[in-house]
This record gives sequence, C-alpha cells and structure tokens, in this order.
Amino acid sequence: MLMRMSSLFLRTLRDDPVDAEVDSHKLLVRAGYIRRAAPGIYTWLPLGLRVLAKVKAVVREEMAAAGAQEIHFPALLPREPYEATNRWTEYGPNLFRLKDRRENDYLLAPTHEEMFTLVVKDLYSSYKDLPLTLFQIQTKYRDEARPRAGLLRGREFIMKDAYTFDLDAESHRASYQAQRDAYERIFTRLGLPYVIVTATSGAMGGSRSEEFLVPSPIGEDTFVRSPGGYAANVEAVTTPVPPDVDASDVPAAHVEDTPDTPTIATLVAVANERFPRPDRAWTAADTLKNVVVALTWPDGRREVVVIGVPGDREVDMKRLEASLAPAEVEQAGEADFAAHPELVKGYIGPGALGPNGAPRTLAEDGTITAGAVRYLLDPRIVPGTRWITGADQPGRHVFDLVAGRDFTADGTVEGADVRAGDSAPDGSGPLELARGIEMGHVFDLGTKYSQALGLTVLDQNGKARLVHMGSYGVGVSRAVAALAEAYHDDKGLTWPVAVAPAHVHLVATGRDEAVFEAAEAIAAGAELAGIEVLYDDRRKVSPGVKFADAELLGVPVVVVVGRGLADGVVEVRQRASGVTREVPVAEAVGVVAETVDSLR
Amino acid sequence: MLMRMSSLFLRTLRDDPVDAEVDSHKLLVRAGYIRRAAPGIYTWLPLGLRVLAKVKAVVREEMAAAGAQEIHFPALLPREPYEATNRWTEYGPNLFRLKDRRENDYLLAPTHEEMFTLVVKDLYSSYKDLPLTLFQIQTKYRDEARPRAGLLRGREFIMKDAYTFDLDAESHRASYQAQRDAYERIFTRLGLPYVIVTATSGAMGGSRSEEFLVPSPIGEDTFVRSPGGYAANVEAVTTPVPPDVDASDVPAAHVEDTPDTPTIATLVAVANERFPRPDRAWTAADTLKNVVVALTWPDGRREVVVIGVPGDREVDMKRLEASLAPAEVEQAGEADFAAHPELVKGYIGPGALGPNGAPRTLAEDGTITAGAVRYLLDPRIVPGTRWITGADQPGRHVFDLVAGRDFTADGTVEGADVRAGDSAPDGSGPLELARGIEMGHVFDLGTKYSQALGLTVLDQNGKARLVHMGSYGVGVSRAVAALAEAYHDDKGLTWPVAVAPAHVHLVATGRDEAVFEAAEAIAAGAELAGIEVLYDDRRKVSPGVKFADAELLGVPVVVVVGRGLADGVVEVRQRASGVTREVPVAEAVGVVAETVDSLR
Repeated sequence: MLMRMSSLFLRTLRDDPVDAEVDSHKLLVRAGYIRRAAPGIYTWLPLGLRVLAKVKAVVREEMAAAGAQEIHFPALLPREPYEATNRWTEYGPNLFRLKDRRENDYLLAPTHEEMFTLVVKDLYSSYKDLPLTLFQIQTKYRDEARPRAGLLRGREFIMKDAYTFDLDAESHRASYQAQRDAYERIFTRLGLPYVIVTATSGAMGGSRSEEFLVPSPIGEDTFVRSPGGYAANVEAVTTPVPPDVDASDVPAAHVEDTPDTPTIATLVAVANERFPRPDRAWTAADTLKNVVVALTWPDGRREVVVIGVPGDREVDMKRLEASLAPAEVEQAGEADFAAHPELVKGYIGPGALGPNGAPRTLAEDGTITAGAVRYLLDPRIVPGTRWITGADQPGRHVFDLVAGRDFTADGTVEGADVRAGDSAPDGSGPLELARGIEMGHVFDLGTKYSQALGLTVLDQNGKARLVHMGSYGVGVSRAVAALAEAYHDDKGLTWPVAVAPAHVHLVATGRDEAVFEAAEAIAAGAELAGIEVLYDDRRKVSPGVKFADAELLGVPVVVVVGRGLADGVVEVRQRASGVTREVPVAEAVGVVAETVDSLR
Repeated sequence: MLMRMSSLFLRTLRDDPVDAEVDSHKLLVRAGYIRRAAPGIYTWLPLGLRVLAKVKAVVREEMAAAGAQEIHFPALLPREPYEATNRWTEYGPNLFRLKDRRENDYLLAPTHEEMFTLVVKDLYSSYKDLPLTLFQIQTKYRDEARPRAGLLRGREFIMKDAYTFDLDAESHRASYQAQRDAYERIFTRLGLPYVIVTATSGAMGGSRSEEFLVPSPIGEDTFVRSPGGYAANVEAVTTPVPPDVDASDVPAAHVEDTPDTPTIATLVAVANERFPRPDRAWTAADTLKNVVVALTWPDGRREVVVIGVPGDREVDMKRLEASLAPAEVEQAGEADFAAHPELVKGYIGPGALGPNGAPRTLAEDGTITAGAVRYLLDPRIVPGTRWITGADQPGRHVFDLVAGRDFTADGTVEGADVRAGDSAPDGSGPLELARGIEMGHVFDLGTKYSQALGLTVLDQNGKARLVHMGSYGVGVSRAVAALAEAYHDDKGLTWPVAVAPAHVHLVATGRDEAVFEAAEAIAAGAELAGIEVLYDDRRKVSPGVKFADAELLGVPVVVVVGRGLADGVVEVRQRASGVTREVPVAEAVGVVAETVDSLR
C-alpha cells in the first residue's frame, strides 16, 4: 500500500479549529483525519478512514474469536419495538425522531437491543439454539445536549454492539465473560490502557454492568479505585451508610437569627461562638445543605426536587442524574423558585418542605399539596444525626435539628460528590479518584428485553422460558479519538503501529532528482515487503513543511531521504521516541521492516 | 474460514414471504440472507452480510485502481447545503427530514453531491490539486413512495458514490471515462451482465448521463437498443420529429355526433364508414387522445395537465415523469375532474383547452383563466397533421382538426410510450425493447454544484474557475439482489464464486461417526487451503433437509460426505450446473480447490 502526498486528499492546518477543546480533536482536524459536518457530526477523510478501518478490523477479529456472529441492522427503524420497551419515551430528547411520507413514526437508533431481541425471536425457538452471540458494527445516533470533544461525544457515531442470548443466568455468565475477555484483548491490541470499573446501567435496564475506561484527564467519566481492588465509575459508587445515632441528649431544635453568615464557613464560626456543642466543635459536615434541582422527565414533565447533603459536600449532578434516571437534572432556575415561594434561597430547611416528622409532600388527607416538592437526602443523614440548617426565613437558621426526630424526607439519593479518601463501599479502603474515557460497556440485561418483546425458547422440558440477555458496546469512532488522546505530543500524533494510517512516512527532501529516485526505490521495496507507505513526493514543498507534516500526521516510522544520500545514507526515525539511526540506503527497507516490527 | 451450520445464525424458510413479488426477494429471505425490518428497510443476516462485504471489496478495489480516494460522510446532515442547491425542496416527499433538539432542520442524505463539493472547497484551492476523484460506500436514505422487490428499491440502502473534480470539460471527460471503465470492471468481476444506456439526469442536473443496466424481466427500467448501436433508457429516448405537413387541402374541421364509439377502434370504424378520407383509411394513429394527469410539485402544489398523444399510443407515466421532473405524475382523480368541469371525460379535445389558434391557458389580458390547464403534445403532432378527437361534449367528436391551423398547445412533451420498431433518434434503425435493473449511473454534473456552493480553484493564470464535476453511483446493496436475480433456479440461489458467502458447502449425512470425522478432516483441509467452508455438521437433521438447504443457500460447490464413504468416495457437485463427480476422499480438498478455481 503506497499513498503519495502529491495526490492524497489532505490539507494539514497550522491553527487549531476554534471549536476544539481537547488535543485529540485539535490534532485530528489539523492533521486532516476528520472534518466537522455539523455539531457532533464528522466526515472521515482518507487518513482518518484508514485508522477507523484498522480499529474495526481488530474489533471484528476479536468478536469472531469470541464466537460472535456479525449481522447488520438498519439505523432507521420504526417506532413500535421501542414503544414496547418504553424507550421511545424514556430516551427523551436524546432520540432523533422523524416521520415518513405516510406519517408513520421512525427513529434513528441509539442502540439496538430491541431489534436483536426481535430477530432472535424471529429465527429461534429452542434451547438447542442457545447460547448465541451476535454483533454489528454500525452507525448510531444520539441527539446529545452537549456534543463535545470531536469524536469523543458525537451525535452520529460508530459502535460495535454485541448481544448474548442464554437459557439461564449461569450460561449468561459464561457469555458475559467471553465478551469481557474479548474486550480486554481488543483494547490491549489497540494499545489503549484501560481500567474495568463497576457502572450503573442507565436506561439499559439489567443488573451487572461494567465499563472499560481509558484513564485520561479529559475523560468525561470519573472513576474511583481502592487499595483493595474496588473500582467503579463515580456514578456507581454507593455511600456506606453509617449506623443510627443516639440523639437522646440532643436539646430541642431552636431557630436563631444568624446575620452575616453568607457562607457555610461563617455559619460554622457563628455556631461555635454562640451555640457551642459540649462534645466537639461544629464543622461544615454538621450543616445540612439543601440544593434545589429541576428534573425533566422523558415525557417533558418538569419536577422541582430538593436534595439534602452534608455542608462539606457538593451535589454531583452526574451522580444525581444517574440516580434519578431517566430524568435529566439541572440546577433550578428563577422560574422554579418563583413557582415555589416556600423555598427561601440560602435558607432552605426541612421546615419548608413539610410538617416535622411526616412525609412532607403529603397533606393529611393523602393528597400532594400544591407547590410541595420532593425532598431527598444523602444516605449519611441517618436518624439521630444533628444538624444546623436553614429556617426557611431570611437571615435565620435552625440548630440541633435531629434527623428522624425533627424531620424526615421522601427517601435517600446518591447525589453528593465522591472524594478521594472516602471509604470504598466494600470496605476495601480509601478511594482515589481519576478521570477516564468510556470505551466499552458490558451489561447483564437479564430478561428485561425478552420480557418486553416476548422472546422465549422452549427448554429441555418443553416449557417456554424467557431468554437471558447481555449487551456489550465498544465506541469504535470514539476509539480513534481516545487513541489520538493517548498517543500524541506537542508536535502532533504518535499512532501505535496497529492503528496508524501507514507504517512508514517516507520524506524526500530537496530538489535533487537522485533523492526522489532513491525514495521511489525505497517506497517500491517497502510496498513489496508489505509495508504501508505514506510517501511525501511533493516537489515544491520545503523540508521544514514536510518534517512538520510528518510530526503532525504521526506515522510511527519516518524515513528521510535527503542530504545524507550523497554519503549513501538515509535517516530512520521513530516518531514517538525520536530515536534516529542513519542507515545505508540499500538497507533502508530492511531496517524499516525491523523497526515497524519492533514497535508492534 | 469455516462456518458451522450447527451454530450459524440461520433459519431457512419453506414458504415465500407474503410481501415478496420477485425471485431474488423471495430467495434472499427464504435462504436467511436478509430480513425485513420495515417497508423498504432490511436487516443483513450473517450470510447476506458476507455477500455484501464481497461486493463492497470488489467496488473498493476497482475504485482504488481508478485512482479514487475513499472518504466517508455522515448520513445525518444539516439542511443548509441542500438548501443552497434547492434540493431540500426539489426532493419533495422522497427526502427524510427531521429536527434536532434545538429545532434545527436535518435530513438523511439521499446522495452527497453537496457535501463532496463543500469538502473539496474546504481543502483545495488550486488547479494543481486537480484532477481529483473521491468516493464513499455509504448508507443512503430515500423515502420511496413504493418501496419494492426487497433490496432492489429500498428506503435505506447502500451505495458507492464517487465524484470527480476537474479544471475543465476536457479533463472531466478523462475522469468520467476512468469511472466508466471502473464500472465495466466492477460489473464484470461481480458477474453481472450489463448494458450501458443513455439516460436522463433527473434531479441531478448536468448533461451527459449513462446508466449501467442489468437486463432482467423484473427490472424497473425499460431500455431500447438499435441495430446501429443506439442504447438508451426508455425515459431518455427522444422522438424523431417528422416534418410539417401541407394541410392546404384538408377540409374545415367539423363536429359530428358519434354515438356508440366507446373505443378508439369503434371511432375509427365509424370515421371510415361515415367520413372516409380520400387518400387512405383513418387509423388509430389519426385520433388524438387527450389524457389528464396530475402533477405534484416538490412544494406540494398540484397541477392538472392534459397530454395529447396519437391514439395508437399510450402515455408512459415514467417517461412523462422524467420529462416533467421534478414533478411527480399520476393519473388525474375524480377530484381533479370535479375541479375542471371543462374536461368532458372520454371527449376531451383541444377545444375545451382554449380558443383555437391561441395559447389556451392565457386569457386575452395575459392572465391564466381559472380552471385552465396546460396542454402538452407528443412531438409527432406537428403543424399540418390531421386529427379526429373529442369535441368536449358527450357523444361528439371533431374531425379534420389540423394542428397549427385549428389548435395549438403549450408545448411538447416526451410522454408517449416507446415501442419495438420505433426509429432510433439517431437514425440507427428500429428499436428493440428490454427491461433492466439500474446498477450504476455516471453523470456529468458540469458546474451546477460548484456554482451553487462556490467551489472554484485558481487556474494557471491566477483566475478563479468553477470546478467541473461528475457524479458516479453503484447500488451496492441492490447488487446483492441483482445477483440473486441473475443467479438462481427453481431450487434456490446459485452464486458466482466472487460473491458467494462461502466457496464450498460441505454436507455430512447420516448418523455414522466416520462420516462426520471425514467431513471434519475435509473442512479443516479446505480451510487450510484458503477455501471458505460452510459445513453442515448438524446431527439430527435429515439428508433431505440438508440437501434442500444446500440448494437454497446456493454456495457454488457442494461436497457430500455420506454413504459413498464406505467405498472411500465423496461427491463433489457444482451447484449451478449440477455437474457431479465422485472423488476419493483423500483427493476431496484438491478437487474442491480446482473446482472453485474453474468457476472463478
């Protein structure tokens, strides 16, 4: 394979695209791998398409090795199957919906659980047909509220999605493991360092769920690890619930004027000065912070909810959103406060949220009072804990308010932030935090989809049984971005051999015809040896521009044919390490082959 | 490559699907290659996806050989580029349109001229960058009014579309020829017999346009050929216009009562009996038949038009539609007639359509009169021709009505049917007609798109010049159906080796363990020899079912390991020809390899 820069459809850019925030996005555009067509929607140019094809090939090979069979579903699908599982509604504004000329409803599929379930139902009927693993590599659509970072979060993107079908949970575990093992091989072959973490299931249903994250400071996912081996997406971290506290000696709650306490720190200082605890000083962790958020449910309904967390923690909107799925969560706005005059900004307390000791959204006759909002607490706020919080009046706080004794809530929610040093839920030690890019996700779907769509098979006793399913995704187009993120330096990309658009970037410099003749010979020899060559054969481009392009494009081995040719040598450089050798021109092809092999 | 029937995701069907009209559709569904997901939208099952992949590979190789570079555009695109070329509107109801969550307009691209034009504008600016040929293999969308015949006319389908960019028309001709040559190689390699015919350009703009048709009785396209080498899609056939006729001795037109003339034949009989011509008998070709049709324009406007053709011809709605593009054409309905009481069904004549000798849709002040309709004539109806036609009153006809003398029209239109024996427009002899499946289309786009979207390059003199473009399509998913249509018999499919899902279908019959052992050995040997094997290793399936499946699936070489094994032989059969040999088991792999090669 030989590509010539003189005719390659490529234009490298000096400047970063204005809409690019992360290095991979900047470099993939600047190096001419992709171009933006619309927000979150990209065109693949020749070099980008080659990288993508290599990623796909690795995924296909490992799926085949795992016994998965490839099929291919349409992207444009009728509404009905997604209606049966309620996802037509649950996906809310993330789903691209449209009508055909007969006014029938269609969607652009964000994921294909329904269709895989139905095709197996269509073809199979017996336990003898199972286990079965199917996959596709397919273009998917999600109308993201905030497409970002180029290919990392797009609205049209390519995924490998696989599905397993088993007679029972035990058989499912083996199928799940086979996919999980295949994922380890895929990411290892691609050169993507990964961490497997426990995850939430989101709108996918099911029980067991793990993510493959590539650690990266620009990742959208935060994950935690403990010394004892616990690893989870931060959205899946559960808070260890402390035991109830004996509050029999806590005095009755009392409301006090607290002027000049604009922050939690000033409030704590005032508390320690004017209402000292006998046992220890008040801290921020003794204040109860009530945060007002607005949920948007898939049917468009907006709900105002108050989240109570210890004052030393923030509400983590992504954790909260994961806990309250399928609602979308945002900070409450002015209109929400206007609709709830009982919520006094800065002084919200359980008092405004309902009568002490009773579920507060319910009136005595069992109806929900107008303007009442649900109140959800952090799991640490157990009965007997003692709090300082707002008194629902400007400039006043309530002290010694005891959970369970003086107030209750509608339930608990995992909405507080997770911090380095927090205890792992399994007791395996303190957590450390890091960020990562979600590259893969494996799910136990249980029988959610087979139940919704009626996928049963007859078992050994002739009895119909719901098929146990699993779902497994790899972000194929995202992998290209994750690789660019993992493999670049300040000069450009530094692709691993397995996914590079070519193995060697051959640069001929100067105006000497002998240089171009020698370069042609090396190009031909390398091509014959099965080496993929990108040959910069441009005649009127300066060496500086050619070298800069070679750095930017990031092909793993760079061969320079130039001045050294007079002495019979060419330069062979490893792009990533910078390690450079001069080699006799006659040995160039052999050295390149060795160098490429050494980098595999 | 070895696939085992015991685990292959496949279920063959005995019965034809109820919605299938053509053999390829029936067989592809029955043999488990595809499944319908929605009207005109199909799922690819494992064997179908393998055939599709082989077609794609041939297309890719020949595009590369023609110097075309592969890129890949999104399917989901913003409205703006299609607005600039007016195709957002022109495509009418054939375009799938949708809105994103911000209420911006998007479409599912039916073809990508706009995007290719814009990406070249984005990257290139000089004549030195040209010529350039780009292509993609991509999923496209068209909301067909009548999706039919399975993959032959779908709403989601896969195309290869290529585009050429040249500085001028002369350079374009070479680029066009290179694509045309590549198409000849593609269809030859795929084993698709083709005819290249002149075509219309439809909504694509441009001048030169040729189609690659695969002759087939179920094809949607009718084409013509002459002994002198003329070949055209019937929609592109132009009618040779006869010279004007001297009508000086034709008597004045006269209206007559013509009861009992329900057909043209009875009208002609009455004419010859009561109003004989002195020179010769009246024939059906002397009657002027006026057919009322309704056009729907892309903006939704409906227009009633009358088409006048000689009474011995029918109106060909597809030819008419091609002539009146971008309008869609259908027979006028009751509502149309109700809106135009001047059109007396069965007796419509030019009289109702306006004053004799004047453009009839125009009133004398130049305004179009209410209820007036356009009147378009077949090109044969030249000045001086003499007609019998309706008198716009029930039961009456007008005789000796002379074109030009007694009536005129709003223009001519190619709407009459083309018949075997008609003269070729280039004088190359009488035409013969046949039907074909459109597999490829090559277009000269001229500067239509570069003008609409501002694609210029600087020429040798530093002057900006519009780029000359061409557009080239291959129906990739349609090719699978066309192949199935061309290669099948009454028992099933008979794939050519180049696209078959496997090279050999190995069938082990009976319950003898030795048979399965021998078959396993042959499968392993064949796989080692690079032969793709589909191995029917099912244990509890009868030989009859296995043989029927082998016929249905259509793998080109069938090897049966069964009773003969006791005598040390297996059977090697060519699926298409039925030619069968018994060969010693030890030679089986070698004979299979030879047989596969002989069929390439």
